[in-house]
Amino acid sequence: MPNRQPTIGEYLLKKLESYGINHIFGIPGDYVVQFFDLIEQSPIQHIGTTREETAGFAADAYARTNGMGAACVTYGVGGLSMINAVTAAYAEKSPLVVISGSPGMKERTEGALLHHKGKDFYTQQRIYDEITVASALLDEPFTAFNEIDRVLDAVYWHKRPGYIELPRDMVGIEGALYQRPSTGTHQSDPETLDAALANAIALINQSENPVILAGAELHRFGFRDKLLRLAEEKQIPVVTTLLGKSVMPEAHPLYLGIYGGAMGRAEITMLVETSDCTIMLGAFMTDVNLGIYTANLARSRSIYAISDKITVGYSTYEDVTFEDFMDGLCSPQLDKRPETNLEWVLEVADPFVMVPDQALTVQRLFQQLNQFLCDDLMVIPDVGDCLWGAADLRLPEHTEFISQAYYTSMGFAIPAAVGAQLSKPNARPIVIVGDGAFQMTGTELSTTIRYGLNPIILILNNKGYGTIRPLAKGSFNTIENWNYTLVPELFGAGSAFSVQTEGEFGVAMKTALTETQHFVLIEAEIDKFDMSPALARLAERVSEKV
Amino acid sequence: MPNRQPTIGEYLLKKLESYGINHIFGIPGDYVVQFFDLIEQSPIQHIGTTREETAGFAADAYARTNGMGAACVTYGVGGLSMINAVTAAYAEKSPLVVISGSPGMKERTEGALLHHKGKDFYTQQRIYDEITVASALLDEPFTAFNEIDRVLDAVYWHKRPGYIELPRDMVGIEGALYQRPSTGTHQSDPETLDAALANAIALINQSENPVILAGAELHRFGFRDKLLRLAEEKQIPVVTTLLGKSVMPEAHPLYLGIYGGAMGRAEITMLVETSDCTIMLGAFMTDVNLGIYTANLARSRSIYAISDKITVGYSTYEDVTFEDFMDGLCSPQLDKRPETNLEWVLEVADPFVMVPDQALTVQRLFQQLNQFLCDDLMVIPDVGDCLWGAADLRLPEHTEFISQAYYTSMGFAIPAAVGAQLSKPNARPIVIVGDGAFQMTGTELSTTIRYGLNPIILILNNKGYGTIRPLAKGSFNTIENWNYTLVPELFGAGSAFSVQTEGEFGVAMKTALTETQHFVLIEAEIDKFDMSPALARLAERVSEKV
Repeated sequence: MPNRQPTIGEYLLKKLESYGINHIFGIPGDYVVQFFDLIEQSPIQHIGTTREETAGFAADAYARTNGMGAACVTYGVGGLSMINAVTAAYAEKSPLVVISGSPGMKERTEGALLHHKGKDFYTQQRIYDEITVASALLDEPFTAFNEIDRVLDAVYWHKRPGYIELPRDMVGIEGALYQRPSTGTHQSDPETLDAALANAIALINQSENPVILAGAELHRFGFRDKLLRLAEEKQIPVVTTLLGKSVMPEAHPLYLGIYGGAMGRAEITMLVETSDCTIMLGAFMTDVNLGIYTANLARSRSIYAISDKITVGYSTYEDVTFEDFMDGLCSPQLDKRPETNLEWVLEVADPFVMVPDQALTVQRLFQQLNQFLCDDLMVIPDVGDCLWGAADLRLPEHTEFISQAYYTSMGFAIPAAVGAQLSKPNARPIVIVGDGAFQMTGTELSTTIRYGLNPIILILNNKGYGTIRPLAKGSFNTIENWNYTLVPELFGAGSAFSVQTEGEFGVAMKTALTETQHFVLIEAEIDKFDMSPALARLAERVSEKV
Repeated sequence: MPNRQPTIGEYLLKKLESYGINHIFGIPGDYVVQFFDLIEQSPIQHIGTTREETAGFAADAYARTNGMGAACVTYGVGGLSMINAVTAAYAEKSPLVVISGSPGMKERTEGALLHHKGKDFYTQQRIYDEITVASALLDEPFTAFNEIDRVLDAVYWHKRPGYIELPRDMVGIEGALYQRPSTGTHQSDPETLDAALANAIALINQSENPVILAGAELHRFGFRDKLLRLAEEKQIPVVTTLLGKSVMPEAHPLYLGIYGGAMGRAEITMLVETSDCTIMLGAFMTDVNLGIYTANLARSRSIYAISDKITVGYSTYEDVTFEDFMDGLCSPQLDKRPETNLEWVLEVADPFVMVPDQALTVQRLFQQLNQFLCDDLMVIPDVGDCLWGAADLRLPEHTEFISQAYYTSMGFAIPAAVGAQLSKPNARPIVIVGDGAFQMTGTELSTTIRYGLNPIILILNNKGYGTIRPLAKGSFNTIENWNYTLVPELFGAGSAFSVQTEGEFGVAMKTALTETQHFVLIEAEIDKFDMSPALARLAERVSEKV
């Protein structure tokens, strides 16, 4: 740093770097161009997407895989275009920092109707207050550094988005380095912790057939090793929620599959719902995770631990951190379980045998895809049947699975692939996306060219909104059919295949895995009314509700 | 109606119809599919776009040209994707009704984390409260009809967006037809009206060189005839704001041009700022309208009338409607002005002479484009230099000009063309759009195929964000260059030209005007650093501020 206090813009960038952020996603604009100038001079790389919402999705996926992520946009037209993406990050606990430029404090007092403004100058911040865990308007040099610290600390600890608004005339103002002590202590009360652990351990030790239901927070907080250790040391079998898929190595003998109420396989449902001790770790109890709330879990014999709540049976324990509880469970007091035969739960899928001339179906396509998965890939399904189909994939040990399995915003997957691969350059994304979702955000394949990324994009083309079709017939479910294989030519790089049979799909996948210099798009033609077994079960349940 | 009370869904559709709404823009989803079913059975046509934000832009443009418009989407992922588009409609006064499906009232009480949900069930409504003039959650059959009436009445009178949230289990519930009296009277207090008019008329009669500054509200409220009558009867010259462009027939001898402070032509600026009586009618005093607040208007000699405020000099008059004030100004007490010579204000542009081999420039391209304009077209520029360049077009008498000249959200124009042409099927949109904006929302050309629309799309391709370039150098201003002429082949219809010279552009425009069966895209190559004279002036002012 030069021989002066850092400016507010400089301090913000330094702090982002200190959290491991190496990329910032966004689009420039006149209210934020000063800060973009600073980014350009910093070690952090700016990543430009085609528009702001996709910058939000990309930054969210980056945050999920990197531990923290950031998007930076202009006021109004920029910030308000990301509301949906940031709400998704809130709902699914992703540590995403949103930085928005805004009108200068001086020009605000002149009272003009400045462009990009909604009702008043504070409209955008009030909206972000609804969808973030902390927000700050950096309108004052004396408090700016502490405000930055406060928001970033909250994002880091809660794994939820935070909002920082930077008026354009404050970027270059020196701040004051008076440091307040950090607000959060994030420590357990030792006696309450002991009580919680004693209760939990007794409950598990008394049980006949405990099972761990593992969720996405283990991924967000980096606790996958803790889960593995607990399962292995105590020999407790593990199932995951859909949102938590891949938090347990899926090739592990203690891993049994996905629990999803009515949507899931009957054997897993039976295992979990007849267990006399369900140990839920980092799992959000959402309707999608629970198969549209058909799940049936008894509170009296459940342990429920997430970052903001620790409950054993009917007792909730305050001032106990998720981490201490996870660590404490692995105590010598907790008995190692005797070996039990769980073969009845395991899926005994016949090995997939490709029939070259057979037309593709959703179910068999995912089985065939499974054969190509390896640790150099990460799997990023979009919503709908891409997600339900992908739920049944058996992932290799280190393969990440990134999905919006709770908030389920269509079009998340392709921009997410941009963010995820920038965070993990050695893992090639394989994106599974419907034609409807592709039409929403497929332009981000252009961004993969700009930054030398190489996802494989599998479009399941059923010519419309396949998840809605089982619920209602209507012309609104049919969309225009594009000539998707022209996409590489439009954007100037990449290659594409259109496949109708298992043989063609096999050839296309093999070629895609060797063509690593750019994106490869595979359009798979699927019958309009074909769907995965999981969607068929789910649609039946939803239409009962609808 | 059958022999029962209408259901809430039926009543809502009937009311929308009664406001002249024949199209509803949006994407289906499981929380809104019941209402989509009802739309399908109604005389209102559903228009599906590629995603929700563009449905919002299309519905906004439809609202501006039709008098009222509607978008209908699902909860969370749908409603929260339109926040930017709805904020634009709020800022620029567009009567847009947003209808969002949402979780049923019954399932909300079960306490599950339902998919698409943010912080809580009311997050979305609270956000919409920030950007609408009225909102309602239809959670109660006894009040639902009155709530619908209240929101639609507010949208109609304020020309601002309104929000109606329809829980999925309420769509088919019968409502109660007990009608409250309409809330707003929308009538002037006669004595205050007389006082306001007497003051205004005296001010104008005493003045030497009054001028009318006409704005967008005259368009929104359908008062263009009132403006024309006032100007002609009293022989007062008219300039418009940029947002108000086309509220006065531009071929009319009393029309002088656009007033835009530093951005505008010096002669117009001088005329307005030396006038001893500026009559501002329906004009928003925004920074863009005023050329980034370099305008210089004295309050003591101004009349300022918009829908929510009537001011003469330093006096504000409450309980006076915009309409009564407009009508009252045209009174016999107001003197007809003597003829004055205003030739010095008029632009004396040399007639445009095409130089076939000359490379295109922004300035000459708009001059050339002007020769092709006729009353069968409407002009829809996107933001940035598309807007500044289009400001100088001299429009034929009945040509509409639709732009986001205040909120300026990039990517508005192509979806706006979809909405505008559905509202006015006999006017063919000519859209002028940058390459950056095209990458944001160009997928809506697919929607033009779906509904048989035929806009002409002129892409000014300067390979990046040209409006930001004058403010900051940086790689963030450069975007990927697409092969735009492949777009018709990708979408399956339409035709495309790439042009570099004035001769090529002339040929392409002539062909485009004869090819009416589908969209025609013209990619015009523009030098990276070329810009309109208006943008050059504006950038200079902004960089002083920045």
